[in-house]
Formats: sequence, structure tokens, C-alpha cells
Amino acid sequence: MDAVDVPVALLGYGTVGEAVHRLLTESGDEIERATGHRFRVVRALVRDPGRPRSFPAGAGVLTTDFAEIRDDPSIALVAEVMGGIEPTAGYVLDLLGAGKPVVSANKQLIARRGAEIFAAASEQGVQLRFEASVCAAIPVIKVLRESLVVTNVHRVLGIVNGTTNFILTRMESGAGYGEALAEAQRLGYAEADPTEDVSGADAAAKMAILATVAFGARVTPDDVLCEGIELMRTQHIEAARELDMAVRLVGTATLVDEAFDVRVQPALVDRHHPLAAVDGAFNAVMLQGDAIREITLEGPGAGGLETASAIVADMVSVVGTAGTGFLQNDACWRTLPRAPVGDLRSPFYVHVEVEDRPGVLARLAERLAAHGVSVARLAQRQLAHGAALDIVTHEAPSGSVDAALEAIAELDEVRGPPDRFRVITERGV
Amino acid sequence: MDAVDVPVALLGYGTVGEAVHRLLTESGDEIERATGHRFRVVRALVRDPGRPRSFPAGAGVLTTDFAEIRDDPSIALVAEVMGGIEPTAGYVLDLLGAGKPVVSANKQLIARRGAEIFAAASEQGVQLRFEASVCAAIPVIKVLRESLVVTNVHRVLGIVNGTTNFILTRMESGAGYGEALAEAQRLGYAEADPTEDVSGADAAAKMAILATVAFGARVTPDDVLCEGIELMRTQHIEAARELDMAVRLVGTATLVDEAFDVRVQPALVDRHHPLAAVDGAFNAVMLQGDAIREITLEGPGAGGLETASAIVADMVSVVGTAGTGFLQNDACWRTLPRAPVGDLRSPFYVHVEVEDRPGVLARLAERLAAHGVSVARLAQRQLAHGAALDIVTHEAPSGSVDAALEAIAELDEVRGPPDRFRVITERGV
Repeated sequence: MDAVDVPVALLGYGTVGEAVHRLLTESGDEIERATGHRFRVVRALVRDPGRPRSFPAGAGVLTTDFAEIRDDPSIALVAEVMGGIEPTAGYVLDLLGAGKPVVSANKQLIARRGAEIFAAASEQGVQLRFEASVCAAIPVIKVLRESLVVTNVHRVLGIVNGTTNFILTRMESGAGYGEALAEAQRLGYAEADPTEDVSGADAAAKMAILATVAFGARVTPDDVLCEGIELMRTQHIEAARELDMAVRLVGTATLVDEAFDVRVQPALVDRHHPLAAVDGAFNAVMLQGDAIREITLEGPGAGGLETASAIVADMVSVVGTAGTGFLQNDACWRTLPRAPVGDLRSPFYVHVEVEDRPGVLARLAERLAAHGVSVARLAQRQLAHGAALDIVTHEAPSGSVDAALEAIAELDEVRGPPDRFRVITERGV
Repeated sequence: MDAVDVPVALLGYGTVGEAVHRLLTESGDEIERATGHRFRVVRALVRDPGRPRSFPAGAGVLTTDFAEIRDDPSIALVAEVMGGIEPTAGYVLDLLGAGKPVVSANKQLIARRGAEIFAAASEQGVQLRFEASVCAAIPVIKVLRESLVVTNVHRVLGIVNGTTNFILTRMESGAGYGEALAEAQRLGYAEADPTEDVSGADAAAKMAILATVAFGARVTPDDVLCEGIELMRTQHIEAARELDMAVRLVGTATLVDEAFDVRVQPALVDRHHPLAAVDGAFNAVMLQGDAIREITLEGPGAGGLETASAIVADMVSVVGTAGTGFLQNDACWRTLPRAPVGDLRSPFYVHVEVEDRPGVLARLAERLAAHGVSVARLAQRQLAHGAALDIVTHEAPSGSVDAALEAIAELDEVRGPPDRFRVITERGV
């Protein structure tokens, strides 16, 4: 049987666009075997058609005119690999409006404009797929939308930023924060301006997308409580090690009583938890749901070829589900409120430095108790002048812990504001 | 828009069949939202319709007559949850021949009769899906067939049997083999007759299916080199711990020079390898390919609800790809030879007990060297009478290591045949 010819277009023809074109060309036989279709890139939107390309697009393919793609009825499918929010969002909405399915690798676009774009796709009955926007080739979006369709995923945990995970694992091996960051930059894991990664903003955008898909409700990066790793110091890593824990930048999305809580924070992760085993620039996402208990997916969360591979898989899936009504729904089908920030329950690690005076521990414990925070483990260490207390609490609302720490900071004996990190225990909260 | 009504049938209505019916019923809204379709179980083949059921099938649904399913043109899709190879294989072939897509949870059926069944599906242009046949709700088949369609997966590593993993992790915590097995039986992880699990046969069937799908070539359980955990003793676990390794029953499927090697063997796994972190009855599968480096999926590999969830996801996927040509290919599209068993290269751990005589280490090292096996690490311990040598070799063909150990076993000073286990290092072979 002859393969069905599928003319496709790309928005953008940079590193990822070229890699998509190359995979479609070089893996044409594999794709035809799985789908009965053969993809052919007929147009690619670029700013400068004259720029040299490592994998040339072919004669007449490059164009600077978006309308040539939107208005060409032969183009069955468009992959958006140009990045940015404008003019990209306008292009994507136009394409969906013209009835063309879109595959996007654009994290910021999906995180910030997802609700609008999903609605446009649903209205036209065409597909929008965006696997590559979160963790590159790790197929977490596909698994959430297709494999876990009947499992009511109520919690997602993830290490979704490879740069910060690389820095934290290097710090575990003894490097200082600045040294680990410089190494990440040298290896190409971190940008010259690393703010997007180390502030947690990149992870927050990914967690917003994961929460949106898992809970079916609109969650944007503005709904995500976000703390970065800029203040992590070797002493925190060492304190974690003494508790048999690892420090990780953990994203969590939790559905409690029909309200969502999504946050990205440095956390102490129990050594036996699967997320503690995620080393270097790798990513992992753990999905917890009714019928499946939990499923964890781990792999490289970045890379041009990995991203291109996810885009091609999405293109294949669009063609493989065309006309069936599958995933033509609005991914944001309900509205959920954000839970009050202080409501999320978790164990916490607290580090306080105090003057070594009689009764200080009692006064500290009293203030924790007054806010309903109970102590699971406590270690006291002598410092040159004074003492350091490392405390792990039982599960408590984060608001109560923060209130207790404010009260503790006011004690005369306490030096500076206490450190506070979430604790992720084995399979628990 | 009204949902499309999809009448479906089940072969079998035991624990899993009931759970499938329950999920289809109770998650009808979720399924309709994702697919635009609503599934309705209209027939279920059973031996005894009078038996009480915890989730009743509905009036007139249970039948003892297979023809009522095969010949009903309204039935769009059949889920096979009856198990066994006969008469199941005949039923499945009949259904595919009648143009009905089939979803199967039957590991032995797919592993032993897969090639024939895939060919029948391909000939009729109908789908056969079998996610639940390997590792329950861990979506490894979907990820291999759909997400990794252009990645040339050349190696699959897996912990695919929860019973043996539970036993080995209990032994790590100090239990003896018999004690750990008894505990697994008490908790329902192991059958009264545990042979299928502890012999590696269950894992071998799963690895045969994974290799078939990953390499596109027929691999049956008879093509799998299989060693169980019956001979694992506390001393092996302790020796592994001293090397900072864990003992796991590891399945590997490797494609080298267009030949496949598939094996299930107890192995020493480096503590930093993702498979070493898989605790208790959990399963994990690592897929290594060109465009993705490696992706690991972890989760519960068994359970009635987990299995049912995977079957429902497959049913949803069949309807979501109907008529597109997607995955209507023969999963075994090429013929590959099995690589000679001794060719697989790996590091190995070797334990030898010897008389404490001068020159014994030299004679032993000489025999390793004569077979081209070089030593990476060696530790010698005094025993009450004699000495124990723990050796980790560099990567070598398993045939060379076995030949060297045969020569070593012939030395006068050596007591009994040496122990030999594969070593799985971080991200390596």
C-alpha cells in the first residue's frame, strides 16, 4: 500500500526545526511503518532565508510570509518551533482557526496562553499537542492525557529543571554554589544569565502546564508559588546529608478538596524517594492517581534532538488520531480555585542558630507547639559561639510553620531568621 | 455533541474484567471528555454465568457462547482478560479475523503467540494492543510504539517482576531467602507455588514482549536466557553492599550488529543506577535509544486495578486511532537472529573461595588473563580456613568469563565452582 503523503510546515527553522526536518527525513521508513503516512516539510517560516543551515530545508521551502503557511490548504499540520510569545501566539491561534492542527514545543506559550489556545483548538475540533514543552523527550503529557485517562491524577511531583538539578548534585559532591553554577555554564547547561533557571521560573512554567493537564483546569505561572536555589549553601546540603536526605528543586502540583496548590521550592528529599535518585541534568516526573498509585518517568529533560524527537512523536500522534474525536477536547475543561498558600500540609526542615542560654530550646518548642507544629526529629550542635538546631517537623500546614518561625525569630536568643525547607518523604506528602 | 456509543465485549469476567467494567462505567465522563465516545459492555464471555460477581455485569451480558461476541456486528472492540493460551489464542485470532480490534492483558499469549497474532491484526488492518501484558499500568508499550517511534531503541533494561524485587530488597534488609519468600507469599506478592516468578520465567516472557516491540522482530520466551533468584544468598547481598551495589533480577534486551540478546539474570547494580533505586514490588523499565539517550518508567507492575486501568487506556487508544492506519502495522516486521549467548559484553562480579596457599592469586589471575578478562577491582578476605576473593572484571564477553571460571574451578586450591553475576554500572552496559 502506498504511504499517504502528509505535507507539513514548520514555524521556525533553528536548531530544533532543523532536527525535526532531519528526523522526519531520515526516519521516514519508521514513521511510515507505524502510521502508513510519510511527512514532507513543504514550508518553514524564518526571518532570514539566506542564513546558512546545517540541514538545508530544500528549494523553495523557507519563507518569510506566514500567510503562505496559513492559507495553503495542502498543509495538514504545523510544528511551532520558533519560541517566544508574540507573534507566536497569534500565528498559532490563526492556524487553529484555519483548521490546522498544531504541535508546539513552546513552554512559555503553553503556560501563559494555554487556556486561550486550548479553547481555540477545541472550538475548531483540531488538535494541539505540546509534549516537547515539558521535559523534552520524557513523554509525560502523552502519559497523562492518554494512559492515565481514567486514573484521576491528584498529585504531580517533579524535578523539571536540569540546570538546577545539576547545580544541586554538584554541591552534594562538595562544590560551592558559585562554582557549580560556573560549571553548569561551562557545560552549556546554564545560560550566561541563569536567572530563568535558578529562580525557579522555568520549573514554574512547566509545573503550570503539568497541573493544567493533570487537573483539567487553567493554571498559569502566576498561580505557582516559586522559590529558587540562589540561597542554597553548602551547609544546607550537609544538613540534608546528615538527615539522609538530598536537596532538590521540587515542583509539586496537588489537588485537595477541588482546589489546586502548585509550587516550586528547594526541598529536602528522603534518600529512598525516587526523586532523590535523579542526578545531574536529568528530569523526573512522578504522577500519583487513584488507579495507578504512582508512575515515575525519568530522562533527559532538554536537548535539541530530544526535543525534536518529542515533536515528531506528537506529529505522528496527530496524524494517528485524526478525525476520531480523540483529544479534541479543551484541556482546561473546568475552573478550579487556587488553594490558600498556607494550607498545604507537609513536613518541614528548620534550621535555627541561637545563643547558648538555658531554656532556649524550651522557648522555641513552645512557639512551635503554640502553632500546632510538632517536632519529629531534633539535633543540637555546638557552634563556636552558640548552638545550631536542626529540626524536622511532622506534617503541618505551611502557614502554621511560617507563623511559628516568625514568632521564633522574635526571640532574643535567635540569630537571624531561621531557614525553612519542605521535606519530601518516601511516597508521602 | 452527543457521545458516540461504543458497544464492547470482554473475554473473561474475573477480577480484572470486573475492574475494567467498573472503570468504564464510573469514568464514563472522563473517557467521553477525552474521546467523544462512551463505552458500554454488552457481552462478557464466562464459564459460569451464575457465579456471584462483586460488580455485576448487567442483565443478559454474561454469555458462555463465544460466537455471540464474534458474530455481533455491533461490537466494536473486545478486551481479552481471561488469560491462558488455549482456547484464548483461537478466540483472539477469530476476533481479529472478523475485523474486531482486540486489547489483551495476556503476557503468555503475547509472548508465545505474538508473531502469529500481530500478523493476523496487520492482515485485517485492525489493532491489537497489549499494554497490560507488561508491567500493568506502566505505559511502556505505548511509549515504545508511539513516543519513541523515531528513536531506534537499541537497549531495554528492566526490573519487570515485582515478586523477586520484593524478595531481594527484603534480603537487603537482612531477611534470608526463605523468610523473604514466605513474607512475599503472606502479602500476596508471591503465589503458593512461586516457581513462575523466582525462576525468572515471568520476567522472561515480559522481556520477550519488550524486545519484540523495541526491535520489531519476533522474540519468544525460548529466545531468552533465563536465570532465577533461587540461589541468591545473604552472602551475595552483603558482597554487593560492600561494592556499593544492589542485587536485582535484571532483564536486558540488547541489539548489537543486527542480532538480539535477551536475558534475565540476577545482577549487581551500581547504587547510582536508576534500577538500584527500585524498591519492593515496584517495576521499572529503562529504554535507551538514539534520539533520547534514556528514559526510565517506574511504577507498580501488578495489581487488578492497575491492570484494568491499562486495559481501559488501550481501549480508549484503539477508538482514538480507529481508521487512521496508525499502529495497524505488524509489530514483528523483520526477522533478526539471536546473538550467540557468550557474545554479550558486560562487567562481571566473581566470588571464589580458595585454600590460603602462596601463589593462588597469581594462578587465578593468569587464567582470567588467558581468556582476555581483566580485573577492575579485587578484594581478598580471610576465612576461618582459606580465603575469599571478590572480583569485579572490566567489560568482557560473558563466554570468555565463563570459560575463565571453568579453568579456575579446575585449580586444586579452588573450593567449589565460583559464583558469577553480571554487573550493571551507571548508564553503562
